[in-house]
Amino acid sequence: MTARTLPGFMELLPQEQIVMEQMKSAIRHTYELFGFAPLDTPVLELAEVLLSKSGGDTEKQIYEFTKGDTDLAMRFDLTVPLAKYVALYNNDLTFPFKRYQIGKVYRGERPQKGRFREFYQCDIDIIDRDELDIAYDAEVLAVIYRVFNELKLPAFKIYINNRKLLSGFLESLNIADKTVDVLRLVDKIKKIPEAAFLGELEEMGLPAGVNNQLLAFIKTNGDNAAILAQLKALGVDNDNFNAGLSELETVINQAVELGVSPDNVQIDLSITRGLDYYTGTVYETFFDAHPEFGSVCSGGRYDNLSSVFMDKKFPGVGISIGLTRLFDQLKNAGLLEIAGPTPNRVLVLMQSPDYAPQALKLAGALRSHNIPADIFRRNCKFKKKMEYANKIKIPFLAIIGEEEAAAGDYTLKNMATGEQSRVSLDQLIAAVS
Amino acid sequence: MTARTLPGFMELLPQEQIVMEQMKSAIRHTYELFGFAPLDTPVLELAEVLLSKSGGDTEKQIYEFTKGDTDLAMRFDLTVPLAKYVALYNNDLTFPFKRYQIGKVYRGERPQKGRFREFYQCDIDIIDRDELDIAYDAEVLAVIYRVFNELKLPAFKIYINNRKLLSGFLESLNIADKTVDVLRLVDKIKKIPEAAFLGELEEMGLPAGVNNQLLAFIKTNGDNAAILAQLKALGVDNDNFNAGLSELETVINQAVELGVSPDNVQIDLSITRGLDYYTGTVYETFFDAHPEFGSVCSGGRYDNLSSVFMDKKFPGVGISIGLTRLFDQLKNAGLLEIAGPTPNRVLVLMQSPDYAPQALKLAGALRSHNIPADIFRRNCKFKKKMEYANKIKIPFLAIIGEEEAAAGDYTLKNMATGEQSRVSLDQLIAAVS
Repeated sequence: MTARTLPGFMELLPQEQIVMEQMKSAIRHTYELFGFAPLDTPVLELAEVLLSKSGGDTEKQIYEFTKGDTDLAMRFDLTVPLAKYVALYNNDLTFPFKRYQIGKVYRGERPQKGRFREFYQCDIDIIDRDELDIAYDAEVLAVIYRVFNELKLPAFKIYINNRKLLSGFLESLNIADKTVDVLRLVDKIKKIPEAAFLGELEEMGLPAGVNNQLLAFIKTNGDNAAILAQLKALGVDNDNFNAGLSELETVINQAVELGVSPDNVQIDLSITRGLDYYTGTVYETFFDAHPEFGSVCSGGRYDNLSSVFMDKKFPGVGISIGLTRLFDQLKNAGLLEIAGPTPNRVLVLMQSPDYAPQALKLAGALRSHNIPADIFRRNCKFKKKMEYANKIKIPFLAIIGEEEAAAGDYTLKNMATGEQSRVSLDQLIAAVS
Repeated sequence: MTARTLPGFMELLPQEQIVMEQMKSAIRHTYELFGFAPLDTPVLELAEVLLSKSGGDTEKQIYEFTKGDTDLAMRFDLTVPLAKYVALYNNDLTFPFKRYQIGKVYRGERPQKGRFREFYQCDIDIIDRDELDIAYDAEVLAVIYRVFNELKLPAFKIYINNRKLLSGFLESLNIADKTVDVLRLVDKIKKIPEAAFLGELEEMGLPAGVNNQLLAFIKTNGDNAAILAQLKALGVDNDNFNAGLSELETVINQAVELGVSPDNVQIDLSITRGLDYYTGTVYETFFDAHPEFGSVCSGGRYDNLSSVFMDKKFPGVGISIGLTRLFDQLKNAGLLEIAGPTPNRVLVLMQSPDYAPQALKLAGALRSHNIPADIFRRNCKFKKKMEYANKIKIPFLAIIGEEEAAAGDYTLKNMATGEQSRVSLDQLIAAVS
């Protein structure tokens, strides 16, 4: 039997997995700081539940099968399970309901570079009944900002827009019936030349004057204050537009009051995030020096989470980080600091197994002080033990030789600086803490 | 569409999930303190890889299906994926290799109380090439001890045995050919009367004298020193037996030197842990007051992890905690301390939305000090806001009314004691830290 792992399924070496876990832990920590409660839903659900809302592509990619006489499917995102969860337990939940979920999802895509069939999504959502205050959209912006600061990754920018601006603007131009087509086109604006953009608008049968207005609108630029000023100066007489403008301004202002640096937030009126799910604020996040990564954290405001399952209205706002892909991109770009394959801070080496009691005492004491530590127990030449210590890139070595055993102390070696000194147990703990 | 979750799949409310996450976190923390590196393998594997070693029951329970022309299966434990991982990456790993994995596994059993189809296993294993020092068996014992202390659960005892003792003893009685039958019977000794035990031995065709010796051996009791002394006094002239005796003594002594309380460890010669996987040390863990939970953490020493996949020999020692079942048992027995449905420590309430800047400043400052905090933003009567605060069992309230807004300070209320006082931002942070 050959040991094999399926293509499209990430499997890391310990030194990489440690970094992955640090990232997960930083994300979890940030989400909890903002009051999001953990949620864990099954990977397997009834196929009809998961497919309740899906279109064609999802169904092709989903892992679906029958066990006994039940049609089962593996979840392909964390949003449908959340919609089910809120519908199922809404009487037991307290609203506004803030949850995070970090879990694996499954899509049976053709495997290709940077695409995974099993990958982590790290989601937050804030859900309320009937209405959700716009202030929560600012909070989500603050979460994105803090997460990427905690992750200690390269410079990033959060791009923000409000879907009501474009739809209101189209209404004010009396071309609301073209909204879907225009949205589809706006989504491509960064990838096609201006002339092509205008040409496609023309093909939709829109008059040239309107098209130029539309292009100018999408391309409104400057810092956030300048963009907001230009939008106001348009004097658009449309409720939808003005609601979007007011929401966008509130979100930016409150985020800054929450501690978000204005340098990390940029209004971009070309951001739409698909056609029909989001209804207000939308977010995308890019690394300044790595636009080729695409958006590494996206989301937005939606009107009704659980409409497939129930009549009650649950508006929400949320984001998702595709962690597996992000990790892979960072790793391939050499942007991860990968150290040794162990969480240990101290490795205890004995020159003879007779010194085990003294080694055990030290290991026990270090762990009692919450310092990860290990004793190397393989009985081999001391040189081999040092090779092991170097291979695992241990930060500190505690050596027990004949002299140390006689004196009941340790030689502590800092492997980064090469410094070493004889120390007592208490001194050793203090030195490595 | 009705929102439904499959039977046999645990789905918790936020206040329960928070406790579950605390347990996972305590387990992860302990495993890392002992130098175990995290590992994360796919939930989906090639069916032939997962089923490479399995017997009949596993195959019936496994979730197996075909996608395209590939036979896939969901993992039913974390051991087979580890065996595959070590075989696949053995040239990139440093041995001894210590890994932990906390992940979901799947078994399509008939759902019944206390049985789950999706459940967490929390495993550690220490693997070496060719030989693994017995000292690691003591370390695993110390891990079990520390995990259950960290989890702050009721009094527990770790039962330990060494498989070589019984097999050596049977060899010394010249009935080694009956080992499998005897093991199967010994496994049942706590459930059947002595007479039935002896009767079944007789049915195997063993002479009465041997049977009584066997029963006396299995039932050897007293504290660990007394049992070890009795075993030595037997004077059994068999290498296997004496190796087992020496290993058992080493494990107990070294565990105590690592800080394990002798009161929490008990030699029990009737523990076998199945028929063919374990070859030396075996562990089981029971709560003193809840024997009906069964063993909540079990494992042992095995000779060769990856034999199905390769010729190289990888002996190991490991344990597993079935966390989903344990959580369910603790919850049903009322042994979990379940608090509010939020990680927040402070909730900020404003008497008017006009005070938002002051609320935002406080929330930002609290989070900067790593204190989970939230602002309640739903615009409703103050009484409703207080109802929300009570419902989520928030530890501290920070209230901004007219006076506080004018003075730029806060009223801090300790919800447990009912005490409240006017404080500055810095005082508030100090008080809730």
